[in-house]
Amino acid sequence: MTMYEIIQKKKEEKVLSKEEISFFVQGFTRGEIPDYQAAALMMAICFSGMNEEETAILTEEMMYSGDVLDLTLLVGACTVDKHSTGGVGDKTTLILAPIVASCGAVVAKMSGRGLGHTGGTVDKMESVPGMKTSLPSESFFKIAKEIGICVVGQSGNFAPADKKMYALRDVTATVNSIPLIASSIMSKKLASGAENIVLDVKYGSGAFMKTPEEAKKLAETMVSIGKRLGRKVSALVTDMDSPLGTHIGNALEVKEAVTVLQGKGDAELTRLCLILSSHMLSLAKNITPEEGRKLAEDALFSGKAFDKMKQWFSHQGGDIAFLDDPSGLSLSAYSCQVLSEKEGYLSKMKTDEIGLSAGELGAGRKTKEDQI
Amino acid sequence: MTMYEIIQKKKEEKVLSKEEISFFVQGFTRGEIPDYQAAALMMAICFSGMNEEETAILTEEMMYSGDVLDLTLLVGACTVDKHSTGGVGDKTTLILAPIVASCGAVVAKMSGRGLGHTGGTVDKMESVPGMKTSLPSESFFKIAKEIGICVVGQSGNFAPADKKMYALRDVTATVNSIPLIASSIMSKKLASGAENIVLDVKYGSGAFMKTPEEAKKLAETMVSIGKRLGRKVSALVTDMDSPLGTHIGNALEVKEAVTVLQGKGDAELTRLCLILSSHMLSLAKNITPEEGRKLAEDALFSGKAFDKMKQWFSHQGGDIAFLDDPSGLSLSAYSCQVLSEKEGYLSKMKTDEIGLSAGELGAGRKTKEDQI
Repeated sequence: MTMYEIIQKKKEEKVLSKEEISFFVQGFTRGEIPDYQAAALMMAICFSGMNEEETAILTEEMMYSGDVLDLTLLVGACTVDKHSTGGVGDKTTLILAPIVASCGAVVAKMSGRGLGHTGGTVDKMESVPGMKTSLPSESFFKIAKEIGICVVGQSGNFAPADKKMYALRDVTATVNSIPLIASSIMSKKLASGAENIVLDVKYGSGAFMKTPEEAKKLAETMVSIGKRLGRKVSALVTDMDSPLGTHIGNALEVKEAVTVLQGKGDAELTRLCLILSSHMLSLAKNITPEEGRKLAEDALFSGKAFDKMKQWFSHQGGDIAFLDDPSGLSLSAYSCQVLSEKEGYLSKMKTDEIGLSAGELGAGRKTKEDQI
Repeated sequence: MTMYEIIQKKKEEKVLSKEEISFFVQGFTRGEIPDYQAAALMMAICFSGMNEEETAILTEEMMYSGDVLDLTLLVGACTVDKHSTGGVGDKTTLILAPIVASCGAVVAKMSGRGLGHTGGTVDKMESVPGMKTSLPSESFFKIAKEIGICVVGQSGNFAPADKKMYALRDVTATVNSIPLIASSIMSKKLASGAENIVLDVKYGSGAFMKTPEEAKKLAETMVSIGKRLGRKVSALVTDMDSPLGTHIGNALEVKEAVTVLQGKGDAELTRLCLILSSHMLSLAKNITPEEGRKLAEDALFSGKAFDKMKQWFSHQGGDIAFLDDPSGLSLSAYSCQVLSEKEGYLSKMKTDEIGLSAGELGAGRKTKEDQI
């Protein structure tokens, strides 16, 4: 078996075997297969595609290229994870995690830093004074076990094959391929070990997938990968043509999450969080999404979820006084309002450009876009 | 303009501009564009193709990446070159060059060494004792001017972009693309400066192109490139499913070329050489192929062409006593006859495998495959 033959086969739109995919992923991760051959293969995959079995095998090989956690073993039953495929201003994790944890599911999440123009959950958490997002593994598992929730920055060596492949795809115009996107996301998700996974696949100008059809195909591909690799996975396809909620910027997004958990948040954002929570609870507790919805609504409107957020933040060292009075959160030194020149409704925004602006103003951390 | 944008554009099956193609070829040749981006672009070209204008621009950029000769200026009018797209046992240059030179056309050829499993013309010439295939440029031009024929090994830096691109294509399964093959061949041919070019595009198991349709497409593409870049180009599509003539191996092929020029050669090989010669003469002397055919036949059957071969070889230092008695040519130390186990006709051969065997026995130089 040679890399040449593997590229040639995919160029001819043939199906790669497990041995061939494994040969590529392992060889490339070890640095034995040169970038130019990997780039040629990625481009051939962009054109020829991969069937569901090939995509699942690719994902599995990428997942086992580094550390693999088994949260069921380390933390216990009912672990559930959520993943959004990009999107600007996605503060849902800050809202979902307390909701589902207060209903008995367990969210033990190692979260990535901001990718591209979007700030990660950990970046947002760090705007709360005192918050520790780097914890020893034992503390991470212990807190998750004890209170049902803990979110830290990614520290282990998860799916290094994906890191190498993504870096190469990023400079060879081979990012935009459903099997490559699906295997990239799922290899990391599966390696981080939750028993149940809910995917929020976004489409629109702020997301990788520009149309609902593409987003649906990506969602189906990732659910199929999860099934083939023995996890329970649900996926929702959601619109990202306007930013989620009313704020963009890390501290502002924490503030907004608090508002939602106080039952006073933006209606659309609240609704999305309840839908995602209901599916997370459905998987984790083996109930219907409708039953999950009921639990989630109770948790949110009774204040149980907000209490869980306070417990969570204080267990990770955060100053929870700021949660009841978020005016003390560190905001940007620069902020301004952009007012419309005429009256009316804003029906659409270039959310990717807003996100990029946020990025330019300091890694997406300190900017503000007020609602009109 | 970035390489990323160029790859992305070709991935989306769009047409590249002159500026973009130039940016790539020049940047890649100077080593500023990394192999992995070039490999991704090549693979995108394999899938998305290139139109005739893009292909001509690519060829021109590759041609001007190194030395460019103008034989009309250096040697005079009526220069004509012939190129065969691979093929095993192709000794036609040894036969064609004396035929057309004896009719007033000029063959001043810098010929490549064997590529892959096929021995080049220069490799074959060197089996004649005393033959010099490395000459100073002045001698090369002088001999060509004086006797209408001179063939030496390639010494200049012709189309270095092609060398780099070919080396990369060879390890990334991106050889098999008509615009890439056509631009590779034509960039070198055009750089070597003949006014007129006849292409012999082969198909069959011994050639790059496996079917007559593919060969026709490649031929049309190369003729179009030539026209766009101001040369007179004809192309023939010929079958390579059996080796040309009766011998494979450098010395044996010189011997066979002599036999053809003595009017006693294999009928099929003789016929092909007369057809190619007629087209070369048609272009070089601005006459019809039929008129060219008449001239070529006269030259061959009158012995004028064989005399020209002797003059040619002796001008390049070759011992022409061997031409009248080729038994003294240096043959392989190892040779054997492979006899069929039953009687009948051989209708087809795996010519590529025969060529590879020749290669393994010493760079395609010393092997023999007898006709049954």
